[in-house]
Amino acid sequence: MKPFNYYNPVKVIFGGEQTHIADILRADGHSKILLVYGKNSIKKSGLYDEICAALKSKGIEFTEHGGVSSNPTLSHAREGVSKAKEATAVLAVGGGSVIDESKAIAAAAASKYDVWELYEGKKPINALDLYVILTISATGSEVNDGSVLTNEETKEKLSFGSPLVYPKVSIINPALALTLSQNYIAYSAVDIIAHVLEVYFTAEEHPKIQNRFCENIVKSVIEATEKILKNPNDINARNEFALCASWALNGLTSLGVGDYSFPNHMIEHSLSAIYNVPHGAGLAVVLPAWLKWFHKSDKKQAKRFAEKIFKKKSAYEGILALKSWFSKIGAPVTLKELGIANEDIEKIAENVDLVSSRWGLKEEYSIKTVKKILKLMK
Amino acid sequence: MKPFNYYNPVKVIFGGEQTHIADILRADGHSKILLVYGKNSIKKSGLYDEICAALKSKGIEFTEHGGVSSNPTLSHAREGVSKAKEATAVLAVGGGSVIDESKAIAAAAASKYDVWELYEGKKPINALDLYVILTISATGSEVNDGSVLTNEETKEKLSFGSPLVYPKVSIINPALALTLSQNYIAYSAVDIIAHVLEVYFTAEEHPKIQNRFCENIVKSVIEATEKILKNPNDINARNEFALCASWALNGLTSLGVGDYSFPNHMIEHSLSAIYNVPHGAGLAVVLPAWLKWFHKSDKKQAKRFAEKIFKKKSAYEGILALKSWFSKIGAPVTLKELGIANEDIEKIAENVDLVSSRWGLKEEYSIKTVKKILKLMK
Repeated sequence: MKPFNYYNPVKVIFGGEQTHIADILRADGHSKILLVYGKNSIKKSGLYDEICAALKSKGIEFTEHGGVSSNPTLSHAREGVSKAKEATAVLAVGGGSVIDESKAIAAAAASKYDVWELYEGKKPINALDLYVILTISATGSEVNDGSVLTNEETKEKLSFGSPLVYPKVSIINPALALTLSQNYIAYSAVDIIAHVLEVYFTAEEHPKIQNRFCENIVKSVIEATEKILKNPNDINARNEFALCASWALNGLTSLGVGDYSFPNHMIEHSLSAIYNVPHGAGLAVVLPAWLKWFHKSDKKQAKRFAEKIFKKKSAYEGILALKSWFSKIGAPVTLKELGIANEDIEKIAENVDLVSSRWGLKEEYSIKTVKKILKLMK
Repeated sequence: MKPFNYYNPVKVIFGGEQTHIADILRADGHSKILLVYGKNSIKKSGLYDEICAALKSKGIEFTEHGGVSSNPTLSHAREGVSKAKEATAVLAVGGGSVIDESKAIAAAAASKYDVWELYEGKKPINALDLYVILTISATGSEVNDGSVLTNEETKEKLSFGSPLVYPKVSIINPALALTLSQNYIAYSAVDIIAHVLEVYFTAEEHPKIQNRFCENIVKSVIEATEKILKNPNDINARNEFALCASWALNGLTSLGVGDYSFPNHMIEHSLSAIYNVPHGAGLAVVLPAWLKWFHKSDKKQAKRFAEKIFKKKSAYEGILALKSWFSKIGAPVTLKELGIANEDIEKIAENVDLVSSRWGLKEEYSIKTVKKILKLMK
């Protein structure tokens, strides 16, 4: 095991009543906030009205910043910053995209930076307090200090992280996801599995306790997903699914493993930056291909994965089992299924190359290597 | 799964250099602190000199409060409070006992309470900042907000908990435990396993993700203990052991499980309150006996435990396997091996009865039931 630091001060209220957020904001001294949300889903479900009423009843003034898209954009985040002038806190009501854009707004507004400077590496010096009501469990953004944003002009999808943007409170009520489409359940499952497997495979060391911790999350999310797809009202499965999502990216999986990287996310971010595909759908295409390319570099770990998760004897059979499970739950597994022409491989590889140094992966992932991996997505 | 709240703001520096604590204290604005430690071990190992030199080099004044015993006592904690008058922080250098007593001092000094009021249920209103340098991984106190103390006069061993006493920073350097005796490794292993199994067996619900999480810790600590006993210098095993200890009682095992209780700890606390036996040694006697009594109330979970941890077919075989593993690593498994006469069972049961309402276990654990369990320790 390698040395590590761990700090995660998010207060999680799991299965809690979302309208309590108004009391919490009040108790923390906030009376003017920015309310950030996505498209129409929270209006359709009634959550929007519920939250607005709760805020008003406690005398909390709010400026609205709706319309966050599923791959949140720089221009929209900039608009949010301009609206946050008087706010002392940001309330994100939504999934990972809404939370990620809210982190950008909270940090840029308080640090007086342009939003993109954060993603280009400038460390925030301050941030508005961030509160979260989670509606979709997938990205883990509700319990971590990272954020991803797309610059639509340059087609760059980059990330930044800072302890300043840990949510102060995250209310995770899995019942709020009941209206989500089956496709999004599948994409979310893929995202969770990808978060775990990036660390599981690329880690410098594989402490047994961490191998088992990762395998537990993958097994549990597979089981929960199948139950939810069978019976969308299985709230118990929804709860396990939500806990998997949080544990997959709250920092626990990487304790003591040394260096690790997120190559699948790097490659997928190019797909969603260029084609605006859902992140989880993109990952379902990238992950099996990447594993086919990668597994020979860590045969032992790849074999262990095959055995522990899918009771398969060889690494390759394990990868195929993962790929068919993605298919089974309705996720795309080829570029074609994602609506991307195989002829675009060159263009995608160039986009990856544009950002690979920011991911610390310039050397390992040459254009040639990336093209090799992309060809495995045909 | 049941709703839950989770908050754990401890900054963990794992495998880190302990002398950095002086810089950390300085950065947090502390210049007068109370230094709490145990008997002579940190003086023998050189850690004491190292820490004192680091504090002096940064101009941090400190009052010393050494001599914390392995079952920390009320009178000694009160002395600590009287020495903490000018301190703005408490630095605990030691294992669980030192940290527990430090929590008592930090809360009582800042709340202007008598120490015992905390253990009798009065909630602290404030606490001095607490910093930890951990020398023995076992109790998990370095990453939680609980504390246990013995009132020597009344022979009561009670606990209190408050988010105010979460350590601000815990430096966990497993190399510091290299001088520990083999017996203490065994007792610590038992303590870790007991923390996990209390929740695993008494929980209202058993979400699969939590069953697996608990089994992972138990498996990992068994493997690590055997490696350490074979080769005390196996630093990798020491690291896994330390991570197991922290994960066993940082609150993660109980997320979503609903109600749970600590009956083994309640019974053991009576043993150590009366006979001053090491906590882990007492637990090694209590746990197999309690399981023999308990396993019929949750046959499914007891069978699962037997299968997953010891590859045994029946619950009872699993319990026997746990008991012989305790023996194998050198922990006592009967009252006699603990130096307690079987004739004392009556007296012990009365002590348990004295505190059982404080543990919320008055109804479930009548004197008659406790005697039944104690008789299984013969």
